[in-house]
Amino acid sequence: VHLKLTIEYDGTDFSGSQLQAEGRGRTVQGEIEAALGRLAGEPVRVALAGRTDSGVHAIGQVASLDFPERARLERPVGVMRALNGLLPADVAVTAAEVAPDGFHARFSARKRAYRYLIWSAPAPRPLLSRYSLHVRRKLDLAAMAEAVSLIEGTHDLAAFAGQAMGVPQESETEDRPSTVRTVYAARLKRLDARASFWAWDAPECQETSNEGTLLAIDLVANAFLPQMVRTIVGTVLEVGYEKMEAQAIPAVIQSRDRSQAGPTARPHGLCLIWVEYPEF
Amino acid sequence: VHLKLTIEYDGTDFSGSQLQAEGRGRTVQGEIEAALGRLAGEPVRVALAGRTDSGVHAIGQVASLDFPERARLERPVGVMRALNGLLPADVAVTAAEVAPDGFHARFSARKRAYRYLIWSAPAPRPLLSRYSLHVRRKLDLAAMAEAVSLIEGTHDLAAFAGQAMGVPQESETEDRPSTVRTVYAARLKRLDARASFWAWDAPECQETSNEGTLLAIDLVANAFLPQMVRTIVGTVLEVGYEKMEAQAIPAVIQSRDRSQAGPTARPHGLCLIWVEYPEF
Repeated sequence: VHLKLTIEYDGTDFSGSQLQAEGRGRTVQGEIEAALGRLAGEPVRVALAGRTDSGVHAIGQVASLDFPERARLERPVGVMRALNGLLPADVAVTAAEVAPDGFHARFSARKRAYRYLIWSAPAPRPLLSRYSLHVRRKLDLAAMAEAVSLIEGTHDLAAFAGQAMGVPQESETEDRPSTVRTVYAARLKRLDARASFWAWDAPECQETSNEGTLLAIDLVANAFLPQMVRTIVGTVLEVGYEKMEAQAIPAVIQSRDRSQAGPTARPHGLCLIWVEYPEF
Repeated sequence: VHLKLTIEYDGTDFSGSQLQAEGRGRTVQGEIEAALGRLAGEPVRVALAGRTDSGVHAIGQVASLDFPERARLERPVGVMRALNGLLPADVAVTAAEVAPDGFHARFSARKRAYRYLIWSAPAPRPLLSRYSLHVRRKLDLAAMAEAVSLIEGTHDLAAFAGQAMGVPQESETEDRPSTVRTVYAARLKRLDARASFWAWDAPECQETSNEGTLLAIDLVANAFLPQMVRTIVGTVLEVGYEKMEAQAIPAVIQSRDRSQAGPTARPHGLCLIWVEYPEF
Protein backbone atom coordinates (compact mmCIF):
# COMPACT_ATOMS: atom_id res chain seq x y z
CA VAL A 1 0.00 0.00 0.00
CA HIS A 2 1.27 3.47 -0.92
CA LEU A 3 1.45 5.80 2.07
CA LYS A 4 1.92 9.49 2.85
CA LEU A 5 3.40 10.17 6.29
CA THR A 6 3.72 13.53 8.04
CA ILE A 7 6.87 13.72 10.13
CA GLU A 8 8.01 16.03 12.94
CA TYR A 9 11.58 16.18 14.21
CA ASP A 10 13.97 18.11 16.36
CA GLY A 11 16.92 18.43 13.99
CA THR A 12 19.51 19.24 16.68
CA ASP A 13 21.03 15.77 16.78
CA PHE A 14 20.55 14.84 13.12
CA SER A 15 23.02 15.14 10.24
CA GLY A 16 20.14 16.43 8.12
CA SER A 17 17.14 14.71 6.60
CA GLN A 18 18.69 12.72 3.76
CA LEU A 19 20.76 9.54 3.91
CA GLN A 20 24.39 10.49 3.40
CA ALA A 21 26.15 9.22 0.29
CA GLU A 22 28.59 7.32 2.50
CA GLY A 23 25.74 6.11 4.73
CA ARG A 24 27.38 7.89 7.66
CA GLY A 25 25.74 10.23 10.15
CA ARG A 26 22.38 9.92 11.85
CA THR A 27 19.66 11.11 9.46
CA VAL A 28 15.87 11.42 9.56
CA GLN A 29 15.53 9.23 6.47
CA GLY A 30 17.83 6.65 8.04
CA GLU A 31 15.79 6.47 11.27
CA ILE A 32 12.47 6.24 9.41
CA GLU A 33 13.73 3.58 7.01
CA ALA A 34 15.22 1.56 9.87
CA ALA A 35 11.91 1.61 11.77
CA LEU A 36 9.94 0.76 8.60
CA GLY A 37 12.34 -2.08 7.84
CA ARG A 38 11.86 -3.59 11.30
CA LEU A 39 8.09 -3.31 10.90
CA ALA A 40 7.95 -4.75 7.39
CA GLY A 41 10.68 -7.36 7.75
CA GLU A 42 12.26 -6.11 4.54
CA PRO A 43 13.95 -2.89 3.39
CA VAL A 44 11.55 0.02 2.74
CA ARG A 45 12.75 3.22 1.05
CA VAL A 46 11.14 6.61 1.61
CA ALA A 47 11.18 9.86 -0.35
CA LEU A 48 11.06 13.12 1.65
CA ALA A 49 9.45 16.36 0.50
CA GLY A 50 12.17 18.74 1.65
CA ARG A 51 15.88 18.25 2.18
CA THR A 52 16.74 19.83 5.50
CA ASP A 53 20.29 20.56 6.63
CA SER A 54 21.91 19.30 9.78
CA GLY A 55 20.26 21.10 12.73
CA VAL A 56 17.11 22.15 10.85
CA HIS A 57 13.76 21.09 12.37
CA ALA A 58 10.47 20.04 10.79
CA ILE A 59 6.91 20.04 11.99
CA GLY A 60 5.37 19.10 8.63
CA GLN A 61 7.95 17.09 6.68
CA VAL A 62 6.29 14.59 4.34
CA ALA A 63 7.43 11.11 3.31
CA SER A 64 6.05 8.77 0.64
CA LEU A 65 6.67 5.04 0.58
CA ASP A 66 5.35 1.64 -0.45
CA PHE A 67 4.52 -0.44 2.58
CA PRO A 68 4.46 -4.21 1.85
CA GLU A 69 0.92 -5.59 2.10
CA ARG A 70 2.00 -8.73 3.84
CA ALA A 71 3.16 -6.75 6.87
CA ARG A 72 -0.53 -6.71 7.87
CA LEU A 73 -0.62 -3.14 9.07
CA GLU A 74 -2.80 -1.89 6.27
CA ARG A 75 -4.51 0.79 8.31
CA PRO A 76 -2.26 3.85 8.08
CA VAL A 77 -2.87 4.73 11.74
CA GLY A 78 -1.55 1.29 12.67
CA VAL A 79 1.67 2.00 10.77
CA MET A 80 1.92 5.39 12.52
CA ARG A 81 1.53 3.90 16.01
CA ALA A 82 3.90 1.03 15.33
CA LEU A 83 6.55 3.36 13.87
CA ASN A 84 6.29 5.75 16.82
CA GLY A 85 6.92 2.80 19.12
CA LEU A 86 10.20 2.14 17.29
CA LEU A 87 11.42 5.69 16.57
CA PRO A 88 13.69 7.65 18.92
CA ALA A 89 12.21 10.59 20.88
CA ASP A 90 13.41 13.30 18.48
CA VAL A 91 11.44 12.10 15.44
CA ALA A 92 7.80 10.99 15.12
CA VAL A 93 5.12 10.23 12.56
CA THR A 94 2.25 12.62 13.30
CA ALA A 95 -0.19 11.61 10.55
CA ALA A 96 -0.52 8.77 8.04
CA GLU A 97 -2.85 8.24 5.09
CA VAL A 98 -3.13 6.08 2.01
CA ALA A 99 -1.98 7.92 -1.13
CA PRO A 100 -2.50 7.17 -4.82
CA ASP A 101 0.28 5.19 -6.51
CA GLY A 102 1.61 8.23 -8.36
CA PHE A 103 2.09 10.26 -5.18
CA HIS A 104 5.72 11.25 -4.52
CA ALA A 105 6.56 13.37 -1.46
CA ARG A 106 9.13 15.41 -3.38
CA PHE A 107 7.94 15.51 -6.99
CA SER A 108 4.22 15.90 -6.23
CA ALA A 109 4.76 18.85 -3.87
CA ARG A 110 3.40 22.19 -5.07
CA LYS A 111 4.47 24.47 -2.24
CA ARG A 112 6.71 24.32 0.79
CA ALA A 113 6.67 26.67 3.78
CA TYR A 114 9.61 27.38 6.07
CA ARG A 115 9.84 29.54 9.18
CA TYR A 116 13.05 30.96 10.63
CA LEU A 117 12.84 32.18 14.25
CA ILE A 118 14.93 35.05 15.61
CA TRP A 119 15.01 36.03 19.28
CA SER A 120 15.93 39.73 19.25
CA ALA A 121 16.91 40.78 22.77
CA PRO A 122 19.84 41.70 25.01
CA ALA A 123 19.63 38.39 26.90
CA PRO A 124 19.46 34.87 25.46
CA ARG A 125 16.43 32.62 26.07
CA PRO A 126 17.59 29.12 26.99
CA LEU A 127 14.08 27.69 26.53
CA LEU A 128 14.10 28.90 22.90
CA SER A 129 17.76 28.39 22.12
CA ARG A 130 17.39 25.08 20.27
CA TYR A 131 14.82 26.62 17.92
CA SER A 132 15.77 30.26 17.36
CA LEU A 133 18.77 32.45 16.53
CA HIS A 134 19.61 34.89 19.31
CA VAL A 135 20.53 38.35 17.99
CA ARG A 136 21.84 40.84 20.56
CA ARG A 137 22.30 43.78 18.19
CA LYS A 138 19.38 46.13 17.68
CA LEU A 139 17.56 45.39 14.43
CA ASP A 140 15.84 47.77 12.00
CA LEU A 141 12.63 45.77 11.70
CA ALA A 142 10.98 48.03 9.12
CA ALA A 143 13.96 47.68 6.78
CA MET A 144 14.05 43.92 7.36
CA ALA A 145 10.33 43.61 6.55
CA GLU A 146 10.87 45.51 3.31
CA ALA A 147 13.89 43.38 2.39
CA VAL A 148 11.98 40.14 3.01
CA SER A 149 9.02 41.27 0.91
CA LEU A 150 11.33 41.95 -2.07
CA ILE A 151 12.05 38.21 -2.27
CA GLU A 152 8.47 37.53 -3.41
CA GLY A 153 7.91 36.63 -7.05
CA THR A 154 9.53 34.40 -9.66
CA HIS A 155 13.28 34.98 -9.84
CA ASP A 156 16.52 33.24 -10.60
CA LEU A 157 17.70 32.90 -6.99
CA ALA A 158 21.22 31.58 -7.64
CA ALA A 159 22.55 34.37 -5.39
CA PHE A 160 20.91 32.62 -2.42
CA ALA A 161 21.96 29.06 -3.27
CA GLY A 162 24.54 27.35 -1.05
CA GLN A 163 27.59 25.46 -2.23
CA ALA A 164 25.66 22.21 -2.42
CA MET A 165 24.32 23.00 -5.93
CA GLY A 166 26.12 19.91 -7.24
CA VAL A 167 23.64 17.83 -5.25
CA PRO A 168 20.32 17.05 -7.03
CA GLN A 169 17.72 19.71 -6.34
CA GLU A 170 14.10 19.79 -5.40
CA SER A 171 12.11 20.20 -8.67
CA GLU A 172 15.16 19.37 -10.77
CA THR A 173 13.97 18.31 -14.18
CA GLU A 174 17.04 18.69 -16.39
CA ASP A 175 20.71 17.85 -16.31
CA ARG A 176 21.57 21.45 -15.45
CA PRO A 177 19.34 22.25 -12.51
CA SER A 178 17.42 25.50 -12.77
CA THR A 179 17.82 28.07 -10.01
CA VAL A 180 14.53 29.79 -10.83
CA ARG A 181 12.01 29.57 -8.00
CA THR A 182 8.63 31.13 -7.37
CA VAL A 183 8.30 32.64 -3.89
CA TYR A 184 4.57 32.97 -3.18
CA ALA A 185 4.95 34.67 0.18
CA ALA A 186 7.86 36.24 2.08
CA ARG A 187 7.10 37.96 5.35
CA LEU A 188 8.68 39.18 8.54
CA LYS A 189 6.33 38.69 11.49
CA ARG A 190 6.46 39.68 15.13
CA LEU A 191 5.08 36.75 17.08
CA ASP A 192 3.00 37.99 19.97
CA ALA A 193 3.63 37.17 23.60
CA ARG A 194 1.08 34.34 23.39
CA ALA A 195 3.39 32.45 21.08
CA SER A 196 4.91 30.61 24.00
CA PHE A 197 3.91 27.51 25.88
CA TRP A 198 4.75 29.37 29.08
CA ALA A 199 2.88 32.63 28.44
CA TRP A 200 0.79 33.39 31.49
CA ASP A 201 -2.43 35.36 31.11
CA ALA A 202 -4.00 34.72 34.50
CA PRO A 203 -5.12 37.67 36.65
CA GLU A 204 -2.48 37.15 39.34
CA CYS A 205 0.14 37.37 36.65
CA GLN A 206 3.56 38.85 37.05
CA GLU A 207 4.87 38.52 33.53
CA THR A 208 8.38 37.24 33.23
CA SER A 209 10.79 39.96 32.43
CA ASN A 210 12.84 38.64 29.53
CA GLU A 211 12.45 41.67 27.31
CA GLY A 212 12.75 41.07 23.62
CA THR A 213 10.93 40.27 20.43
CA LEU A 214 10.41 36.90 18.80
CA LEU A 215 10.54 37.34 15.03
CA ALA A 216 9.61 34.91 12.29
CA ILE A 217 10.79 35.07 8.69
CA ASP A 218 8.22 33.02 6.74
CA LEU A 219 8.81 31.86 3.18
CA VAL A 220 6.44 29.92 0.91
CA ALA A 221 7.79 28.79 -2.47
CA ASN A 222 7.25 26.10 -5.06
CA ALA A 223 10.66 24.69 -4.10
CA PHE A 224 13.83 25.84 -2.35
CA LEU A 225 17.48 25.83 -3.35
CA PRO A 226 20.02 24.39 -0.90
CA GLN A 227 20.45 26.74 2.09
CA MET A 228 18.14 29.24 0.39
CA VAL A 229 16.16 30.21 3.51
CA ARG A 230 19.30 30.46 5.63
CA THR A 231 21.02 32.66 3.04
CA ILE A 232 17.97 34.91 2.70
CA VAL A 233 17.82 35.22 6.50
CA GLY A 234 21.53 36.03 6.67
CA THR A 235 21.04 38.72 4.03
CA VAL A 236 17.96 40.17 5.70
CA LEU A 237 19.92 40.35 8.96
CA GLU A 238 22.58 42.43 7.18
CA VAL A 239 19.75 44.83 6.36
CA GLY A 240 18.61 44.71 10.00
CA TYR A 241 22.14 45.61 11.10
CA GLU A 242 22.10 48.51 8.61
CA LYS A 243 25.04 47.06 6.72
CA MET A 244 22.94 46.76 3.57
CA GLU A 245 19.94 48.68 2.23
CA ALA A 246 16.65 46.86 1.75
CA GLN A 247 16.50 48.39 -1.74
CA ALA A 248 19.68 46.48 -2.64
CA ILE A 249 17.86 43.12 -2.60
CA PRO A 250 16.72 43.22 -6.28
CA ALA A 251 20.33 43.90 -7.36
CA VAL A 252 21.56 40.99 -5.24
CA ILE A 253 19.00 38.73 -6.95
CA GLN A 254 19.95 40.02 -10.40
CA SER A 255 23.65 39.42 -9.76
CA ARG A 256 23.08 35.64 -9.44
CA ASP A 257 26.29 35.89 -7.39
CA ARG A 258 26.35 34.20 -3.99
CA SER A 259 29.03 36.62 -2.79
CA GLN A 260 26.58 39.53 -3.13
CA ALA A 261 24.25 37.99 -0.55
CA GLY A 262 24.83 37.86 3.21
CA PRO A 263 26.26 35.00 5.28
CA THR A 264 24.34 31.75 5.76
CA ALA A 265 22.36 32.00 9.00
CA ARG A 266 22.84 29.12 11.46
CA PRO A 267 20.51 26.16 10.87
CA HIS A 268 18.88 25.79 14.28
CA GLY A 269 16.39 28.67 13.80
CA LEU A 270 14.84 26.99 10.75
CA CYS A 271 11.79 24.73 10.62
CA LEU A 272 9.96 23.14 7.67
CA ILE A 273 6.33 23.89 8.53
CA TRP A 274 4.16 22.41 5.79
CA VAL A 275 4.15 21.02 2.25
CA GLU A 276 1.21 21.38 -0.11
CA TYR A 277 0.06 18.75 -2.60
CA PRO A 278 -2.80 18.54 -5.10
CA GLU A 279 -5.78 16.95 -3.35
CA PHE A 280 -6.18 13.25 -3.85
CA VAL B 1 25.73 45.79 45.94
CA HIS B 2 22.72 43.55 46.62
CA LEU B 3 21.17 42.18 43.42
CA LYS B 4 18.05 40.37 42.26
CA LEU B 5 18.53 38.31 39.10
CA THR B 6 15.85 36.60 37.01
CA ILE B 7 17.05 33.33 35.55
CA GLU B 8 15.80 31.10 32.73
CA TYR B 9 17.04 27.57 32.15
CA ASP B 10 16.40 24.39 30.25
CA GLY B 11 16.59 21.85 33.08
CA THR B 12 17.17 18.80 30.86
CA ASP B 13 20.89 18.57 31.50
CA PHE B 14 20.90 19.83 35.10
CA SER B 15 20.85 17.81 38.32
CA GLY B 16 18.35 20.34 39.67
CA SER B 17 18.71 23.90 40.80
CA GLN B 18 20.52 23.54 44.13
CA LEU B 19 24.15 22.71 44.81
CA GLN B 20 24.31 19.06 45.88
CA ALA B 21 25.46 18.26 49.41
CA GLU B 22 28.43 16.37 47.98
CA GLY B 23 29.05 19.11 45.42
CA ARG B 24 28.46 16.60 42.66
CA GLY B 25 26.25 16.97 39.59
CA ARG B 26 25.81 19.98 37.34
CA THR B 27 23.39 22.43 38.98
CA VAL B 28 21.93 25.82 38.12
CA GLN B 29 23.26 27.31 41.35
CA GLY B 30 26.69 25.85 40.60
CA GLU B 31 26.83 27.37 37.10
CA ILE B 32 25.65 30.80 38.31
CA GLU B 33 28.06 30.87 41.24
CA ALA B 34 30.94 29.78 39.00
CA ALA B 35 30.21 32.59 36.53
CA LEU B 36 29.79 35.14 39.36
CA GLY B 37 33.03 33.98 40.92
CA ARG B 38 34.94 34.48 37.68
CA LEU B 39 33.42 37.95 37.32
CA ALA B 40 34.05 39.05 40.89
CA GLY B 41 37.40 37.37 41.41
CA GLU B 42 36.13 35.89 44.66
CA PRO B 43 33.45 33.37 45.67
CA VAL B 44 29.87 34.69 45.47
CA ARG B 45 26.96 32.70 46.91
CA VAL B 46 23.40 32.96 45.60
CA ALA B 47 20.02 32.07 47.08
CA LEU B 48 17.34 30.79 44.70
CA ALA B 49 13.58 31.34 45.06
CA GLY B 50 12.47 27.81 44.14
CA ARG B 51 14.18 24.46 44.40
CA THR B 52 13.62 22.69 41.11
CA ASP B 53 14.29 18.98 40.59
CA SER B 54 16.56 17.47 38.00
CA GLY B 55 14.92 18.00 34.58
CA VAL B 56 12.59 20.82 35.67
CA HIS B 57 12.79 24.09 33.70
CA ALA B 58 12.43 27.72 34.76
CA ILE B 59 11.53 30.87 32.92
CA GLY B 60 11.30 33.09 36.01
CA GLN B 61 13.60 31.64 38.66
CA VAL B 62 14.97 34.36 40.97
CA ALA B 63 18.38 34.63 42.65
CA SER B 64 19.60 37.08 45.29
CA LEU B 65 23.26 37.79 45.96
CA ASP B 66 25.81 40.32 47.16
CA PHE B 67 28.04 41.39 44.34
CA PRO B 68 31.40 42.84 45.52
CA GLU B 69 31.61 46.58 44.79
CA ARG B 70 35.20 46.42 43.67
CA ALA B 71 34.29 44.26 40.68
CA ARG B 72 33.29 47.56 39.03
CA LEU B 73 30.15 46.24 37.37
CA GLU B 74 27.78 48.20 39.54
CA ARG B 75 25.11 48.60 36.87
CA PRO B 76 22.94 45.48 37.12
CA VAL B 77 22.62 45.26 33.33
CA GLY B 78 26.41 45.10 33.14
CA VAL B 79 26.42 42.12 35.51
CA MET B 80 23.68 40.49 33.41
CA ARG B 81 25.62 40.89 30.15
CA ALA B 82 28.90 39.76 31.63
CA LEU B 83 27.29 36.70 33.24
CA ASN B 84 25.56 35.72 30.01
CA GLY B 85 28.93 35.84 28.29
CA LEU B 86 30.22 33.27 30.78
CA LEU B 87 27.19 31.01 31.23
CA PRO B 88 26.51 27.90 29.11
CA ALA B 89 23.68 27.99 26.54
CA ASP B 90 21.08 26.28 28.74
CA VAL B 91 21.01 28.94 31.48
CA ALA B 92 20.83 32.75 31.24
CA VAL B 93 20.20 35.83 33.32
CA THR B 94 17.21 37.59 31.74
CA ALA B 95 16.86 40.57 34.10
CA ALA B 96 18.91 42.18 36.85
CA GLU B 97 18.13 44.92 39.35
CA VAL B 98 19.46 46.36 42.59
CA ALA B 99 17.52 45.07 45.61
CA PRO B 100 17.34 46.29 49.20
CA ASP B 101 19.74 44.63 51.64
CA GLY B 102 16.99 42.59 53.28
CA PHE B 103 15.86 41.01 50.01
CA HIS B 104 16.22 37.22 49.92
CA ALA B 105 15.09 35.30 46.83
CA ARG B 106 13.64 32.46 48.89
CA PHE B 107 12.49 34.02 52.17
CA SER B 108 11.09 37.24 50.68
CA ALA B 109 8.97 35.41 48.10
CA ARG B 110 5.20 35.67 48.56
CA LYS B 111 3.96 33.52 45.68
CA ARG B 112 5.38 31.09 43.19
CA ALA B 113 3.73 29.92 39.96
CA TYR B 114 4.45 26.63 38.20
CA ARG B 115 3.10 25.25 34.93
CA TYR B 116 3.08 21.59 33.94
CA LEU B 117 2.56 20.89 30.21
CA ILE B 118 0.82 17.77 28.89
CA TRP B 119 0.62 16.85 25.21
CA SER B 120 -2.53 14.74 24.92
CA ALA B 121 -2.53 13.01 21.53
CA PRO B 122 -2.03 9.67 19.78
CA ALA B 123 1.34 10.75 18.35
CA PRO B 124 4.29 12.31 20.19
CA ARG B 125 5.52 15.82 19.34
CA PRO B 126 9.33 15.81 19.12
CA LEU B 127 9.44 19.63 19.10
CA LEU B 128 7.65 19.68 22.48
CA SER B 129 9.12 16.56 23.98
CA ARG B 130 11.73 18.29 26.17
CA TYR B 131 9.04 20.46 27.76
CA SER B 132 5.86 18.39 27.99
CA LEU B 133 4.64 14.97 29.07
CA HIS B 134 3.16 12.98 26.20
CA VAL B 135 -0.02 11.12 27.19
CA ARG B 136 -1.44 8.70 24.61
CA ARG B 137 -4.47 7.55 26.62
CA LYS B 138 -7.68 9.54 26.24
CA LEU B 139 -8.19 11.92 29.15
CA ASP B 140 -11.39 13.01 30.87
CA LEU B 141 -10.62 16.73 30.82
CA ALA B 142 -13.72 17.84 32.72
CA ALA B 143 -12.89 15.51 35.61
CA MET B 144 -9.25 16.64 35.57
CA ALA B 145 -10.30 20.30 35.68
CA GLU B 146 -12.51 19.59 38.69
CA ALA B 147 -9.75 17.64 40.46
CA VAL B 148 -7.23 20.45 39.91
CA SER B 149 -9.63 23.09 41.24
CA LEU B 150 -10.08 21.11 44.47
CA ILE B 151 -6.43 21.75 45.32
CA GLU B 152 -7.13 25.46 45.84
CA GLY B 153 -7.18 26.77 49.39
CA THR B 154 -5.07 26.39 52.53
CA HIS B 155 -4.46 22.73 53.35
CA ASP B 156 -1.97 20.42 54.93
CA LEU B 157 -0.59 18.96 51.70
CA ALA B 158 1.62 16.21 53.18
CA ALA B 159 -0.11 13.71 50.87
CA PHE B 160 1.54 15.47 47.91
CA ALA B 161 5.03 15.82 49.40
CA GLY B 162 7.85 13.72 47.96
CA GLN B 163 10.35 11.68 49.94
CA ALA B 164 12.73 14.61 50.23
CA MET B 165 10.90 16.07 53.26
CA GLY B 166 14.06 15.65 55.33
CA VAL B 167 15.61 18.42 53.23
CA PRO B 168 14.94 22.00 54.42
CA GLN B 169 11.78 23.40 52.86
CA GLU B 170 10.73 26.63 51.27
CA SER B 171 9.15 28.76 54.03
CA GLU B 172 10.45 26.47 56.75
CA THR B 173 10.38 28.38 60.00
CA GLU B 174 10.57 25.70 62.68
CA ASP B 175 12.53 22.58 63.40
CA ARG B 176 9.66 20.42 62.22
CA PRO B 177 8.76 21.83 58.84
CA SER B 178 5.08 22.51 58.26
CA THR B 179 3.37 20.90 55.31
CA VAL B 180 0.55 23.48 55.27
CA ARG B 181 0.51 25.53 52.06
CA THR B 182 -1.90 28.04 50.56
CA VAL B 183 -2.75 27.37 46.93
CA TYR B 184 -4.11 30.62 45.49
CA ALA B 185 -4.92 29.24 42.08
CA ALA B 186 -5.09 25.75 40.57
CA ARG B 187 -6.31 25.41 37.01
CA LEU B 188 -6.34 23.11 34.04
CA LYS B 189 -6.06 25.05 30.79
CA ARG B 190 -6.26 24.11 27.13
CA LEU B 191 -3.60 26.13 25.36
CA ASP B 192 -4.89 27.26 21.99
CA ALA B 193 -3.24 26.48 18.69
CA ARG B 194 -1.45 29.84 18.80
CA ALA B 195 0.62 28.66 21.73
CA SER B 196 3.36 27.48 19.42
CA PHE B 197 6.29 29.24 17.82
CA TRP B 198 5.42 27.39 14.63
CA ALA B 199 1.67 28.09 14.46
CA TRP B 200 0.90 29.37 10.99
CA ASP B 201 -2.03 31.73 10.48
CA ALA B 202 -1.31 32.93 6.96
CA PRO B 203 -3.99 32.66 4.28
CA GLU B 204 -2.17 30.04 2.20
CA CYS B 205 -2.04 27.87 5.29
CA GLN B 206 -2.25 24.14 5.34
CA GLU B 207 -2.19 23.51 9.06
CA THR B 208 0.08 20.72 10.19
CA SER B 209 -1.86 17.66 11.07
CA ASN B 210 -0.52 16.63 14.47
CA GLU B 211 -3.89 16.24 16.15
CA GLY B 212 -3.95 16.66 19.87
CA THR B 213 -4.39 19.05 22.75
CA LEU B 214 -1.73 20.91 24.68
CA LEU B 215 -2.80 21.14 28.33
CA ALA B 216 -1.36 23.21 31.14
CA ILE B 217 -1.83 22.54 34.84
CA ASP B 218 -1.11 25.89 36.52
CA LEU B 219 -0.51 26.23 40.25
CA VAL B 220 0.11 29.39 42.26
CA ALA B 221 0.95 28.98 45.96
CA ASN B 222 2.79 30.74 48.75
CA ALA B 223 5.35 27.93 48.64
CA PHE B 224 5.64 24.36 47.39
CA LEU B 225 6.60 21.10 49.07
CA PRO B 226 9.20 18.89 47.34
CA GLN B 227 7.71 17.29 44.22
CA MET B 228 4.34 18.81 45.10
CA VAL B 229 3.42 19.90 41.55
CA ARG B 230 4.58 16.62 40.05
CA THR B 231 2.59 14.60 42.61
CA ILE B 232 -0.53 16.72 42.06
CA VAL B 233 -0.16 16.24 38.29
CA GLY B 234 0.31 12.48 38.71
CA THR B 235 -2.85 12.37 40.84
CA VAL B 236 -4.86 14.51 38.43
CA LEU B 237 -3.79 12.19 35.60
CA GLU B 238 -5.21 9.24 37.57
CA VAL B 239 -8.49 11.16 37.51
CA GLY B 240 -8.07 11.77 33.77
CA TYR B 241 -7.55 8.02 33.22
CA GLU B 242 -10.75 7.38 35.28
CA LYS B 243 -8.81 5.41 37.87
CA MET B 244 -9.79 7.90 40.57
CA GLU B 245 -12.79 10.21 41.05
CA ALA B 246 -12.24 13.96 41.14
CA GLN B 247 -14.37 14.03 44.29
CA ALA B 248 -11.75 11.87 46.03
CA ILE B 249 -9.22 14.71 46.09
CA PRO B 250 -10.36 16.21 49.44
CA ALA B 251 -10.06 12.78 51.09
CA VAL B 252 -6.56 12.35 49.64
CA ILE B 253 -5.60 15.73 51.11
CA GLN B 254 -7.14 14.88 54.49
CA SER B 255 -5.28 11.55 54.64
CA ARG B 256 -1.89 13.34 54.74
CA ASP B 257 -0.71 10.00 53.32
CA ARG B 258 1.52 10.05 50.24
CA SER B 259 0.35 6.57 49.27
CA GLN B 260 -3.21 7.89 48.75
CA ALA B 261 -2.02 10.25 46.00
CA GLY B 262 -1.02 9.25 42.46
CA PRO B 263 2.49 8.64 41.11
CA THR B 264 4.99 11.47 40.70
CA ALA B 265 4.77 12.81 37.14
CA ARG B 266 8.05 13.00 35.23
CA PRO B 267 9.95 16.27 35.75
CA HIS B 268 10.41 17.45 32.17
CA GLY B 269 6.86 18.85 31.79
CA LEU B 270 7.36 21.27 34.67
CA CYS B 271 8.47 24.91 34.54
CA LEU B 272 8.80 27.55 37.28
CA ILE B 273 7.11 30.55 35.65
CA TRP B 274 7.30 33.43 38.09
CA VAL B 275 7.91 34.41 41.73
CA GLU B 276 6.20 37.33 43.42
CA TYR B 277 7.82 39.64 45.99
CA PRO B 278 6.64 42.69 47.91
CA GLU B 279 7.49 45.77 45.86
CA PHE B 280 10.72 47.48 46.76
